[in-house]
Amino acid sequence: MRSSGRSATESLDAAGIDFLKGHGTQNDFVLLPDATASIDLTPDLVRALCDRQRGIGADGVLRVARADALCATGVLTELPAGVRTTDWFMDYRNSDGSVAEMCGNGVRVFAHYLASSGAVSGSTFTVGSRAGGRRVEVHHADDTTADVSVEMGAVSTGVESKAVLGDTTVAGLAVDVGNPHLACVVSGLDVATLAGIDLAHGAEFDPAVFPDGVNIEIITPVADGSVDMRVLERGVGETRSCGTGTVAAAAAALRASTGTQVGTVDVRVPGGQVTVRIDETGAVLRGPSVLVASGTLRAGWNTP
Amino acid sequence: MRSSGRSATESLDAAGIDFLKGHGTQNDFVLLPDATASIDLTPDLVRALCDRQRGIGADGVLRVARADALCATGVLTELPAGVRTTDWFMDYRNSDGSVAEMCGNGVRVFAHYLASSGAVSGSTFTVGSRAGGRRVEVHHADDTTADVSVEMGAVSTGVESKAVLGDTTVAGLAVDVGNPHLACVVSGLDVATLAGIDLAHGAEFDPAVFPDGVNIEIITPVADGSVDMRVLERGVGETRSCGTGTVAAAAAALRASTGTQVGTVDVRVPGGQVTVRIDETGAVLRGPSVLVASGTLRAGWNTP
Repeated sequence: MRSSGRSATESLDAAGIDFLKGHGTQNDFVLLPDATASIDLTPDLVRALCDRQRGIGADGVLRVARADALCATGVLTELPAGVRTTDWFMDYRNSDGSVAEMCGNGVRVFAHYLASSGAVSGSTFTVGSRAGGRRVEVHHADDTTADVSVEMGAVSTGVESKAVLGDTTVAGLAVDVGNPHLACVVSGLDVATLAGIDLAHGAEFDPAVFPDGVNIEIITPVADGSVDMRVLERGVGETRSCGTGTVAAAAAALRASTGTQVGTVDVRVPGGQVTVRIDETGAVLRGPSVLVASGTLRAGWNTP
Repeated sequence: MRSSGRSATESLDAAGIDFLKGHGTQNDFVLLPDATASIDLTPDLVRALCDRQRGIGADGVLRVARADALCATGVLTELPAGVRTTDWFMDYRNSDGSVAEMCGNGVRVFAHYLASSGAVSGSTFTVGSRAGGRRVEVHHADDTTADVSVEMGAVSTGVESKAVLGDTTVAGLAVDVGNPHLACVVSGLDVATLAGIDLAHGAEFDPAVFPDGVNIEIITPVADGSVDMRVLERGVGETRSCGTGTVAAAAAALRASTGTQVGTVDVRVPGGQVTVRIDETGAVLRGPSVLVASGTLRAGWNTP
């Protein structure tokens, strides 16, 4: 953890920048321990770092910094709601260099790192994010694996709509988990049929309902308290896991099964399994984290 | 470099296995320093390590071991031609877990590591490979970047054939560089047009000429001593670079330009630039290497 009182910023391309690589249900991240927010995390360098051939490769970067340091260095212009100056803050960047507010899989890996490195004491604490402070509970953490619950906030269901997959049309429910989802619980769909669906060409949806695009989940009905799903992430295509997508899927599957979205469902995605619990106040996402490796970038690694 | 006299093998999933990540013109590798060949490098663990979400992620693994140690542990049943027991041997594995004989980009990164880590003295030495001993010359090497020449062996051109790209057919030349290539120098093709060609759906070729499949290069004619090319690797699709592909491209472009394959050509690929020199005895491939980071795998990282 870089925690010295250095005031100068340093380039991500400088010598000796430490990192970790980890994943939550195979949504993968490069973590940059940077308590004092001294690394100059430019979009170009984030893209290079996430480039899977010429960098380390990841779906995103999680900078581990103190909230007050991010304010002091101007990365944050103000503290989001529910974040204290002394909280650890997940400064999340997408692999395209853009800033993202939250990442349900990333925050588990972030909390895992804090707990296993000794940066926090106790098993429950708040992680700062641009979407606000998120309460996490670390049920288990060692150097490599962890089991973490994260408060995901409110879940609101909207209108019914449709997704078109090639020559098949499936009905779904609009679900808002801070970002838009079209969660399609397909009656009679079994795991083998789900696995065989061609998602390589994406899906069509109603742009009048989702003017900013939408994440689309294809979901089996609840059986023995669990569902299987696959997900098309907005602007990306199929991924092995999507944290907010599992919450949307659980809400839609519970509604289809019980008429209410309150309850608990195990959700299997291609990258693993999580558990979603929804009550009147919102959703809690519980799932695994793996820290695969730790390392050090070499000076000038971002050579053309 | 693990060099102790341990006789027991250890799992790649054990604690404290060191690695490096590097690339040659964006063909990327995980290097495993393992002088005594003590790591039990199973296909399953190679696949997991090369998995870009749940491992480190790479096109292949380069184990850095002594040739005699690979013989002693049974990884090699005999020394390939031109390899001495004291040579460093590039035990190359594809990301699918299979063994490969040679990798023109990988051997530059391998030699870079040997030179920059002090494992070899002097700038010219032999790297062992399953295709035989390969003479390398390290023109420059620091901790992060290097410029390396590698003997690529004989280049033989064969019959003319064709590649079909969607509704376009281009003529090419069969070139054998230890593996089969169809090198298509397209008259009048410029860089912008090359960049716009849709290679996402691969290309068709004559299976009577290439019964085991073929790597296909689309190449601009020689201008000012250089060509631009894109490559479809057999069984993979488009990649940012292919070492033997650049040699095949140089041979075909020289033949189209001068009527003989002897000469020197700079070859630009999407991942960078290399120089190919061909004389009567064979080809020498010169190009860059980057060591991006070094790190340590965590015990049990290969968790489901």
